[in-house]
Amino acid sequence: MKIALAQINYHIGHFDSNVLKIKNAIQKAKQKGVDLIVFAEMAVSGYPPRDFLEFDDFIQKCYQAIKEIAQSCIGIAAIIGSPSINPSAKGKFLYNSAYFLYDGDIQYITHKSLLPTYDIFDEYRYFEPFRDVNVLNYMGRKIALTICEDIWDIGDERLYTISPMDVLAKQGPDLMVNIAASPFHYRQASSRREVLVRNALRYNLPLFYVNHVGAQTELLFDGGSMVINRDGEIFDEFNYFEEDFRVYELKEGSNQVSLFYSDFKPEKQKPESKISLIHDALVMGIRNYFQKLSFSKAILGLSGGIDSAVTLALAARALGNDNVKAVLLPSRYSSEHSINDAVVLAENLNIPYDIIHIEKAFKSFEETMSQWFDGLPADITEENLQARIRAVILMSLSNKFGYILLNTSNKSEAAVGYGTLYGDMCGGLSVLGDVYKTEVFDLARYINRSQPIIPEHTISKPPSAELRPGQKDSDSLPDYEMLDQILYQYIELRKGPGDLIDQGYSEEIVSKVLKLVNTSEHKRYQMPPVLRVSTKAFGMGRRMPIVAKYLS
Amino acid sequence: MKIALAQINYHIGHFDSNVLKIKNAIQKAKQKGVDLIVFAEMAVSGYPPRDFLEFDDFIQKCYQAIKEIAQSCIGIAAIIGSPSINPSAKGKFLYNSAYFLYDGDIQYITHKSLLPTYDIFDEYRYFEPFRDVNVLNYMGRKIALTICEDIWDIGDERLYTISPMDVLAKQGPDLMVNIAASPFHYRQASSRREVLVRNALRYNLPLFYVNHVGAQTELLFDGGSMVINRDGEIFDEFNYFEEDFRVYELKEGSNQVSLFYSDFKPEKQKPESKISLIHDALVMGIRNYFQKLSFSKAILGLSGGIDSAVTLALAARALGNDNVKAVLLPSRYSSEHSINDAVVLAENLNIPYDIIHIEKAFKSFEETMSQWFDGLPADITEENLQARIRAVILMSLSNKFGYILLNTSNKSEAAVGYGTLYGDMCGGLSVLGDVYKTEVFDLARYINRSQPIIPEHTISKPPSAELRPGQKDSDSLPDYEMLDQILYQYIELRKGPGDLIDQGYSEEIVSKVLKLVNTSEHKRYQMPPVLRVSTKAFGMGRRMPIVAKYLS
Repeated sequence: MKIALAQINYHIGHFDSNVLKIKNAIQKAKQKGVDLIVFAEMAVSGYPPRDFLEFDDFIQKCYQAIKEIAQSCIGIAAIIGSPSINPSAKGKFLYNSAYFLYDGDIQYITHKSLLPTYDIFDEYRYFEPFRDVNVLNYMGRKIALTICEDIWDIGDERLYTISPMDVLAKQGPDLMVNIAASPFHYRQASSRREVLVRNALRYNLPLFYVNHVGAQTELLFDGGSMVINRDGEIFDEFNYFEEDFRVYELKEGSNQVSLFYSDFKPEKQKPESKISLIHDALVMGIRNYFQKLSFSKAILGLSGGIDSAVTLALAARALGNDNVKAVLLPSRYSSEHSINDAVVLAENLNIPYDIIHIEKAFKSFEETMSQWFDGLPADITEENLQARIRAVILMSLSNKFGYILLNTSNKSEAAVGYGTLYGDMCGGLSVLGDVYKTEVFDLARYINRSQPIIPEHTISKPPSAELRPGQKDSDSLPDYEMLDQILYQYIELRKGPGDLIDQGYSEEIVSKVLKLVNTSEHKRYQMPPVLRVSTKAFGMGRRMPIVAKYLS
Repeated sequence: MKIALAQINYHIGHFDSNVLKIKNAIQKAKQKGVDLIVFAEMAVSGYPPRDFLEFDDFIQKCYQAIKEIAQSCIGIAAIIGSPSINPSAKGKFLYNSAYFLYDGDIQYITHKSLLPTYDIFDEYRYFEPFRDVNVLNYMGRKIALTICEDIWDIGDERLYTISPMDVLAKQGPDLMVNIAASPFHYRQASSRREVLVRNALRYNLPLFYVNHVGAQTELLFDGGSMVINRDGEIFDEFNYFEEDFRVYELKEGSNQVSLFYSDFKPEKQKPESKISLIHDALVMGIRNYFQKLSFSKAILGLSGGIDSAVTLALAARALGNDNVKAVLLPSRYSSEHSINDAVVLAENLNIPYDIIHIEKAFKSFEETMSQWFDGLPADITEENLQARIRAVILMSLSNKFGYILLNTSNKSEAAVGYGTLYGDMCGGLSVLGDVYKTEVFDLARYINRSQPIIPEHTISKPPSAELRPGQKDSDSLPDYEMLDQILYQYIELRKGPGDLIDQGYSEEIVSKVLKLVNTSEHKRYQMPPVLRVSTKAFGMGRRMPIVAKYLS
């Protein structure tokens, strides 16, 4: 039996485009003599469609897409994910389903049993868990067909009280197929391999796994579809961050897998280090955000600091240097070296840049407000004012010329509220909002790995917002090495103050940092969507009340 | 048996305050000879604590609070909601639990079976559904103790496959107690009565129901705790939008309820019309947002239009006229009548106001940008610029003097993206973001019901953003009567384009409006939290992808 896996970049709700890509893959598979082609979970709609699932019209469009795809399945079978309506009068309205299409029609349907409802996942919001799984019979083989999370709950502590794969295993399957929509974080590639290998070994079956690739706003899918032999050997793994298509042959009787055809070099070097994975994920995230919104041009404010430098380099990589515009917006407090560093960077990247001084606008506001502010000392108001004037200028350029403004805030400053709402926190997309400051430095060094792009001075100088004379980040924050460790413990690992103090951090610093995080929730609420690269990003995966009074 | 119900305004994560309020109520109940006092679901933590539930430290604080409260339960029993740890190695880490405290300790615990996971609810994100319910025995009576949603799934179409109250009914209970955290929308009071009455009738039992009151950022709890006789008569219903405490006597043998003590006049007039409910809910929402964040003073930009007028009147009611600051920010396009209308309103409300002209700042930006914009026609850029300059000025005043900026966007314009990001879409809290424009007019008339507060001209003139000469909202949008109907059908009822065209709207208008809604998701993503008064508000209850390509 020849089995094709199609790793595709879908677009949520863009049925025409998704169906076309799917039908093209089926056509190609037919030409290669494939018996079964496997697509990802929720392929026809893209993932996650979120509350579009609550619209009958959207569900009907999913059905129409499945019907249309089924008509291409003549002489070939397809497994493909799409929602379906729960026929029972009890339970949620929908199932998260896997369709088996053959002979021009839907021949079989099964549904997801384990519905991830944590972090960025909301599946029980829409779907009823399925409790009556059965193997699928095709060409004399029994296929244990599961959907993503169905095979992930295999640790000692179980998140669910049922295990669909345990049920299927009792029916004597010959192979496992898992269709997934499993988003990226920088540990996901290794977790995925480990979980899939454990499944192959536990059930002693070959496993064919198909994932999404591409970005859907903040969620990044790295692909990494793979085939595992029954002995737990990873026989083949798809490239990351790009579409891919491969055909395997499952030998008669033996259940041994061999590669039959590949669009790509399977041995292509995959990014493996944390920073290279983050880098490639962010580049894809920027690129797909623009493509899927039908925009091409980005703009950002270049300060001479590390965050905007790294954002600019990533944007240039994602969109092409011709499609990125850098704007330097110096104020009376901007240092000469900042302007120089920014200019050198733009020139290194061959990116057009403008210099727009904000002094005139700043003065006009000083005059406008003088009646109200007269005699009062300068404070955070004047600092925020500079950041907001820059935002107004950048948004004016964005409006006039059709750029999307990229946000340059990093995760450390977003965490502690070190940023100006409607100022430097503006933008359509936050590129570095899930990257701690210390990781931004690592990214800068990675970007410079083969040639100097980001000026060394940008990397080596002490971080400063340059909103008052001589200001440094370290004036008001712990140094970033320590800050980022505490933030990681609190945000990713959800450690409490007691745990942190036990780890040796002073009570004073722990209390200060946690309070800053909790009392700046209102700022993060209005941040742009953040490209997610960690296990706990700000945004849809971290849901916090604003008026809470806890560790604050 | 004397049963007290305590309807309390909790503060999420503010354990000291919540425990104090709970202990005070227990003390008062003791003085009245009460046998059992009932508090709401998740009372000790406030509701919803959201992802704080994933912090061990937070859960431990819930346990400590329960222990402390139990020590007050000498000679009196209490039923109270709080999370508890699921002792099984399978399933979610927590239960959403009801504790029975007596004799200084925890005597019994049961858990919620039906976990709302839709709209603003995320309960399966945290909790395992409980499947082994049993009645609670106290003073010779069997109590069927359930938690909120447990008794709401009583229609013909069931959202859940189990029914805890059906199970409990078989154990011969004498009364039902339901503890709830059921947020307000303008149809909630009537739905609540209907659902509770149906339960009393179906199980032929008296029902004691305790809800939260008060606002937690966007979620508003109206209270409305109540007692229903076994014959379905609503014996007593608590006041809306305020704390309340009452004691009932359940006659020996008969299960007939009588009122024993009340803090308030139970017969106090309740708001009943949709608009009066929305009005009171919004006033509470503003007031609690400020109280719980320890702020007292609000600021807003007053345009002379209806949205800022209504917001100002609500803020004055919520915070007191001395705590609200109005700022008029006229531009070269502001009409004389707008300034007059705004001044009259501020004077009617006895609210201090300032007039700050934005022309100087606008000119400075024109000059700053002239090199880039020279020769290009004025467009949306210059319109947005005015809105953003106003935001910069308001935020400067906010920063300098400690005001919180109130957002004045209404639901209609938020829906279609008719507003400027980082301009009029700014603010700490959106007061009218869940109130359609036509409802804003109704609110204005309601505010004026006994004396003229909002100038008649503000209500009668055609809506305009006044960002270019002679501009009217109707230049680019369908008239609000029709627009709001289409938006309601699409947003609240989730009707598709086919349904809407079947209802008689033209394909052209339907297609335009739905496209506007779907393509302005990126703007709403960065809106402030919206006080929720409808069944489908923007924010946590409506989760949409940004890069989707559907009806767009």
